[in-house]
Amino acid sequence: MLAWDDARDSARPGILVAHTIGGRSEFEEGKARRLAELGYVALALDVYGKGTQGSDFDTNRSFMNALLNDRGELQSRLLAGLQFMRQQPEVDAARTAAIGFCFGGLCVLDIARTGADIAGVVSFHGLLAAPGNTADNTVAAKVLVLHGWDDPMATPDAVEALAKELTLMRADWQLHAYGNTMHAFTNPAAHDPQQGKQYDRGADDRSWAAMENFLVELFGKQEK
Amino acid sequence: MLAWDDARDSARPGILVAHTIGGRSEFEEGKARRLAELGYVALALDVYGKGTQGSDFDTNRSFMNALLNDRGELQSRLLAGLQFMRQQPEVDAARTAAIGFCFGGLCVLDIARTGADIAGVVSFHGLLAAPGNTADNTVAAKVLVLHGWDDPMATPDAVEALAKELTLMRADWQLHAYGNTMHAFTNPAAHDPQQGKQYDRGADDRSWAAMENFLVELFGKQEK
Repeated sequence: MLAWDDARDSARPGILVAHTIGGRSEFEEGKARRLAELGYVALALDVYGKGTQGSDFDTNRSFMNALLNDRGELQSRLLAGLQFMRQQPEVDAARTAAIGFCFGGLCVLDIARTGADIAGVVSFHGLLAAPGNTADNTVAAKVLVLHGWDDPMATPDAVEALAKELTLMRADWQLHAYGNTMHAFTNPAAHDPQQGKQYDRGADDRSWAAMENFLVELFGKQEK
Repeated sequence: MLAWDDARDSARPGILVAHTIGGRSEFEEGKARRLAELGYVALALDVYGKGTQGSDFDTNRSFMNALLNDRGELQSRLLAGLQFMRQQPEVDAARTAAIGFCFGGLCVLDIARTGADIAGVVSFHGLLAAPGNTADNTVAAKVLVLHGWDDPMATPDAVEALAKELTLMRADWQLHAYGNTMHAFTNPAAHDPQQGKQYDRGADDRSWAAMENFLVELFGKQEK
């Protein structure tokens, strides 16, 4: 799903939007539209393929785990999405970035880990674990990790491991940790603190603003 | 040292600026002037007192250590500075914040730890260790910690301890970690990577921008 403002006639920076465990949904499409309103072209990816969305959480988890167990295949699909976005006439192929949420946060970190020629990636409450097939790469992308400190799926140990990994891979990386904040903090439908998932308006606003500033650092101010 | 723009006639939010180990200097006074240009009133503190600056690093360390060994006295001086700033006619006493660098980063965290009625504090490459006399307090201030991940004076363990401390004290806290970044990253004179101190232009710019955004979150946009 590609979102752009057709009142513009020049090519614009292209931003991939990588989906949560649930597959591409209105949530990610809404993020793509907000990016289009900011002056970018945004492609909401579907790495499960063909609009796949499971009917329940366990089914979606099986889709996600299939790709987590074959990170090379996941990375191929992600890079194919990046390549596809670059080919769209609305997109300035030399100026690309990626954002992602939850599983999609892991996806955009994996794009960076491949060493792909992409200006930057932004992970929102992403899974942080290294893929195991990229340790010798150099990260070209600037990396911004937006993280709820109380996220049980990304513990302080995982933060420290990511920091070491990205430093060894020579990444220009940043991590913004939000206190009293759990997994899924950008998702207004998340209300499951027992499972460590909870929407947080403050962290949602702060993380989106941090992403906006990061995109301006990468691409300059966009005309609206 | 108070900095303000006398072209304005209304009271403005007041921002304390807490100094490094070196005592109040042109560095902190420059930060105060930049804050005045942004529409705030800024007070560059002198917690050593009477313009004290040691002639060498070891002397300055002795001044700092005297206060680190008496955190209650340090906190009293800081709160006296806050009170003094509130009394200035240029300052809107209901809208105050504090920023600090290195030792001054510790100072502003200590202001927050006292439970002081202050809207927010921003620590730049601050020392993070808890004072030992504030654990039962509730933090009223919003807290933003801007941190070089490779700072040997604030290790990942110290980050984790601070996160636990501030969470227990119910603070609204955030920590921005910058990769490949050492202590003193805002100080253009810092060039001592063997000692873990190094200026970093990228982290300097990012951290100042993060502070500006944080002050807007606290006080709204200021007229310039």
